[in-house]
Amino acid sequence: MRKFMDEDFLLETETAKKLFHEHAQKMPIIDYHCHISPQEIAEDRKFNNITEVWLGGDHYKWRLIRSNGVEEKYITGTASTPREKFQKFAEALPRAIGNPLYHWTHLELKRYFHCDKQLNGDTAEEIWNLCNERLQQPDMTVQGIIKQSNVKVICTTDDPADDLKWHKKIAEDGKCSARVLPAMRPDAAMRIEKPEWANYMLYKLAPAAGMDGIETMQDIRDALAKRIGFFASMGCKASDHALEYCFCTPATEEQLDDIVGKVINGKGQPSVKEQEQYKTALLLFLGQEYARRGWAMQIHYSALRDNNSNMFAKLGPDTGFDCIATYNCGEGLVNFLDALNKREALPKTIIYSLNPADNAMIGTIIGSFQGPEAREKIQQGAAWWFNDTKAGMEAQLQNVGNLSVLGNIVGMLTDSRSFLSYTRHEYYRRILCNFIGNLVESGQYPADMDYLGQMVEDISYNNAKNYFGF
Amino acid sequence: MRKFMDEDFLLETETAKKLFHEHAQKMPIIDYHCHISPQEIAEDRKFNNITEVWLGGDHYKWRLIRSNGVEEKYITGTASTPREKFQKFAEALPRAIGNPLYHWTHLELKRYFHCDKQLNGDTAEEIWNLCNERLQQPDMTVQGIIKQSNVKVICTTDDPADDLKWHKKIAEDGKCSARVLPAMRPDAAMRIEKPEWANYMLYKLAPAAGMDGIETMQDIRDALAKRIGFFASMGCKASDHALEYCFCTPATEEQLDDIVGKVINGKGQPSVKEQEQYKTALLLFLGQEYARRGWAMQIHYSALRDNNSNMFAKLGPDTGFDCIATYNCGEGLVNFLDALNKREALPKTIIYSLNPADNAMIGTIIGSFQGPEAREKIQQGAAWWFNDTKAGMEAQLQNVGNLSVLGNIVGMLTDSRSFLSYTRHEYYRRILCNFIGNLVESGQYPADMDYLGQMVEDISYNNAKNYFGF
Amino acid sequence: MRKFMDEDFLLETETAKKLFHEHAQKMPIIDYHCHISPQEIAEDRKFNNITEVWLGGDHYKWRLIRSNGVEEKYITGTASTPREKFQKFAEALPRAIGNPLYHWTHLELKRYFHCDKQLNGDTAEEIWNLCNERLQQPDMTVQGIIKQSNVKVICTTDDPADDLKWHKKIAEDGKCSARVLPAMRPDAAMRIEKPEWANYMLYKLAPAAGMDGIETMQDIRDALAKRIGFFASMGCKASDHALEYCFCTPATEEQLDDIVGKVINGKGQPSVKEQEQYKTALLLFLGQEYARRGWAMQIHYSALRDNNSNMFAKLGPDTGFDCIATYNCGEGLVNFLDALNKREALPKTIIYSLNPADNAMIGTIIGSFQGPEAREKIQQGAAWWFNDTKAGMEAQLQNVGNLSVLGNIVGMLTDSRSFLSYTRHEYYRRILCNFIGNLVESGQYPADMDYLGQMVEDISYNNAKNYFGF
Repeated sequence: MRKFMDEDFLLETETAKKLFHEHAQKMPIIDYHCHISPQEIAEDRKFNNITEVWLGGDHYKWRLIRSNGVEEKYITGTASTPREKFQKFAEALPRAIGNPLYHWTHLELKRYFHCDKQLNGDTAEEIWNLCNERLQQPDMTVQGIIKQSNVKVICTTDDPADDLKWHKKIAEDGKCSARVLPAMRPDAAMRIEKPEWANYMLYKLAPAAGMDGIETMQDIRDALAKRIGFFASMGCKASDHALEYCFCTPATEEQLDDIVGKVINGKGQPSVKEQEQYKTALLLFLGQEYARRGWAMQIHYSALRDNNSNMFAKLGPDTGFDCIATYNCGEGLVNFLDALNKREALPKTIIYSLNPADNAMIGTIIGSFQGPEAREKIQQGAAWWFNDTKAGMEAQLQNVGNLSVLGNIVGMLTDSRSFLSYTRHEYYRRILCNFIGNLVESGQYPADMDYLGQMVEDISYNNAKNYFGF
Repeated sequence: MRKFMDEDFLLETETAKKLFHEHAQKMPIIDYHCHISPQEIAEDRKFNNITEVWLGGDHYKWRLIRSNGVEEKYITGTASTPREKFQKFAEALPRAIGNPLYHWTHLELKRYFHCDKQLNGDTAEEIWNLCNERLQQPDMTVQGIIKQSNVKVICTTDDPADDLKWHKKIAEDGKCSARVLPAMRPDAAMRIEKPEWANYMLYKLAPAAGMDGIETMQDIRDALAKRIGFFASMGCKASDHALEYCFCTPATEEQLDDIVGKVINGKGQPSVKEQEQYKTALLLFLGQEYARRGWAMQIHYSALRDNNSNMFAKLGPDTGFDCIATYNCGEGLVNFLDALNKREALPKTIIYSLNPADNAMIGTIIGSFQGPEAREKIQQGAAWWFNDTKAGMEAQLQNVGNLSVLGNIVGMLTDSRSFLSYTRHEYYRRILCNFIGNLVESGQYPADMDYLGQMVEDISYNNAKNYFGF
Repeated sequence: MRKFMDEDFLLETETAKKLFHEHAQKMPIIDYHCHISPQEIAEDRKFNNITEVWLGGDHYKWRLIRSNGVEEKYITGTASTPREKFQKFAEALPRAIGNPLYHWTHLELKRYFHCDKQLNGDTAEEIWNLCNERLQQPDMTVQGIIKQSNVKVICTTDDPADDLKWHKKIAEDGKCSARVLPAMRPDAAMRIEKPEWANYMLYKLAPAAGMDGIETMQDIRDALAKRIGFFASMGCKASDHALEYCFCTPATEEQLDDIVGKVINGKGQPSVKEQEQYKTALLLFLGQEYARRGWAMQIHYSALRDNNSNMFAKLGPDTGFDCIATYNCGEGLVNFLDALNKREALPKTIIYSLNPADNAMIGTIIGSFQGPEAREKIQQGAAWWFNDTKAGMEAQLQNVGNLSVLGNIVGMLTDSRSFLSYTRHEYYRRILCNFIGNLVESGQYPADMDYLGQMVEDISYNNAKNYFGF
């Protein structure tokens, strides 16, 4: 029996151990997609207690506690103390055998808190004290965590209208050991069906672009083009789009102007078809701009969000009430990529579906649109969100391995709102090394350790550096 | 090499063996969902031969024999003898390597018939004699089988109009070692598209509810409410719904009355939309009633039934001509659960899809609707029907483990029409212990055997007891 | 650690090794579905260099090289030399760890070129020379390869209008060690939406059937019936249909004649519904004919083809720009099979979906339509195209094992355009033996080696011989 989470955690073979300890472990981190706050980096936030770090905004953990039958007042809000919340989490966690949170939590305890204990109801008090004490040490500020995690590049997630003042401040200060770059996420500009869209256009995007107003589709394109220019000047190399499903619905410029005019002037709601037409046109334009500038476009789709109306009314979005959607996206995705490609304007693209049943479809679509701009120009993204588990990562590695060129992928990202999540890169690298180790030790790939060591280093770090151009 | 189906069958690690032999094996059985006949329990049926038990109504076995190219006359009907039917089954079985029937059959031979032989064409005669002899022994009546299987609770599947006289008789007799409770399955009331629906309403449900007739939607609600009250008085704690797919289609009370009025008076067929409207309204009402009484609602969906028209004409439903359907049910399921939740009337709910491609979707939907009424108030049900295999069970355990709190699940049910199927609980428990054992021995979970032993006992028995409130 | 691809490649247990080396390995090959050229067999083509064999038409390899970021001129066309193309392939291959091409390539190097080296950028020159030298030897002509591969039957893929002159020549010559039979693929006749359909009907199919023209649906049936008769006289035992998705859309004969008349006279395009009506009618007729003659019908579906418009314009179809489609085909497939079955005209049928998410659905549909004409009359086909990987094959074996009778399946086909692909049968047989070996050695199936040896021989060869009637 292997000891729980020892130094060879998840490494089942000698080849895997060698690849991890001699190659993967030493590589720095490029976290090219996450949701951490640049303000907190700039201000080098210090945490008061472990509940702030772990349970302040982590909807993965909230879901887990809710599934244990705990009342909401012990999960979010101010009706319970941080210590009480921590207790509920500690009691729920050991019941969640097989859940990645069990591993993430204990990896974070080990790496950042030097604590080898297992969290449960009985150990909660001791671990609470230990963690809070450790959080007072100077290397446990946000920048301290980033530094000890060996992070070289962080891409935050930013609205095109954002002034990126915190990114500027971080760069000017020159103290953060990682480059903190913006990544553009124009979801607010895309979501023409939302009541706040017109106000966003008129009072956020237009002013940010130095424009008096937005009247036509071309105005929107112009505004975003300016913001893309600004983001590029700030080092941006990647964008990101959250789509519910994939589509490619053509429209004439007149139709687009009618849709934009109608909605921006509050004269009506866009039909589903009109939403698709507007979004298709905008995505095609944006893709073209990304391609021109060598940015990578990320597409995340197949999530149903804010499923629980009662809780959405109380807590708002991103609070743990989302799920995997079931859509047939093959045709929509193919047609969209082909439309860009026909214009010779398909950027480097990374596709993530929240539905693992789409893996094989994505693994074969990407092969239809490769190009000489980059190895694996079109990629399947790492296992995303609910799939960000050992099984989910193995499925993604196997899928890309079977259907494309595994040695070319850009590897892991945290997608996280927490500064302690960099251990997920370690988690991924262990699984990667184990995956490769199993192929080698079962005679399915030659034991050329130099070549494999390089491949592991590339997937851990170099591929992302080259692909995005950091 | 491990011996075929020895005492450590399916237990690959020492941890798994310990968990099974010291914890899982001794726990009694709660079979909270099955299709056995309460009449046969009440009458303590005795079987004449093994073909009666195994091939009398088991469409799993019928399919297997058909797939072996055998003529239907050797499978169902009276044109062949029980011995001939048994022979055809015995000849087909060994060809079905990898099929759970191979395991179920031999587990039943071992546990109930004390026979370690392997069934095939050559051994059929010997096993036929041996089984038939054993079936004459007094502990091989229905109640004898229940007793030796250590079953504490059985929930049958019953129409709301049922008078539950056999349940009464069993309770009055006081001889059956298990409590035999009804579970309500209002499919006949739901299926407004069926030609027999109006007659069911007028001549079965209304009289059972002591009502003169059914004219409006409210009449239907009233009738079912009364039957729910009666079922509750008989110890019912669970309901069950078979849906082809999931939907949530709103309607006004006027629309509902129009639909009900039209169909009940034979003035027209309901459109697909009207069917969904009627069923949505009925399900919302029923869910509310279940919630009020603390019942658990089970939803089984994604089956296509009676696919083979020729055979349906000859043999009727549930004869082995069904399959897994392909529907996109994410939105419908979310909207339905949310509609109940908005009314503060979401009962404990267990969701089963016949399509394993839905696993991840369900695993994430449940997390959006948890509540303090129970641990894992909303659950993914155990691997169902065609998924009731080693691989299917492992997939369900992994899915729930990855996405929710595995320690909270209510475990196995037989879903069976046969009294010998209680060995499927053993089969499940072995797979469960093996699943946990692998996590522990690979260093993915601490080897805290007391904690894990309790968890295994809970999933085997205690969780179901607490969740349903038996 | 196992050596790379040694004699026990993919055989993890002693049982697997015994089954492969004593049973599977010796069996001849029936390649009942492939895309090789009967002309090249008849002319006993000799290859000039390894690029001709490997990279002349293999879109699997083209995709791999494209995914490595290589310019198209080094992949297809005449702007680069065969040696340059080989180099790009050699450089891409080792990066594709986990890709079946890595295994196929090295199996072919071993079996046909007696070369144990690993192909990469450094070894490319040596292997280039070695292969080209070997290709000059007399046993490396097309017929030589077929002979040393122990192939007994080859079914090519042929249009109904084909005169099968090369098949005749091969038979008359009597030199090829394998029987080379036609298999009918009436896709051109089915695809009424294609601009070339009318010309195909008028100038290919009608003349081939000795008819003056095509005016009605019945004319099309008559023409195809004649061609089926001709193909049967040439030894044809199987047909094949490529469908994008499954459907069953009824139509009256008048409607069908209107559709046919409209399109054949260039008076309009068929709507999607009309396409489905026409294709349904044609498939029902063809199925009936196949059933009457004892042919097996193969249905391949769920591919999206020619996704990349730019590349399609340059290179045409089957050049590596296809992907897995996402359709909900359960109902369409069930209704189609049932429609044939109702007419007592359901032929032996093999169903292949390109989407592995359909596995469970197919595995359960087949069980609804079995019959006494053959063991496993309706089968799920072997893992197809993108699924033709170790994981894909294991998934198919597990699916059929769980849901049907594994001992009855017809086993592997190459589906290939290359004469060196017969090693895929070896690859499949190793995986099959390993799958069975794992069941046996883990105590899930008795170690009856005679029975299992026979089963492996059957799946490797005998089942296909009996099922198709070769």
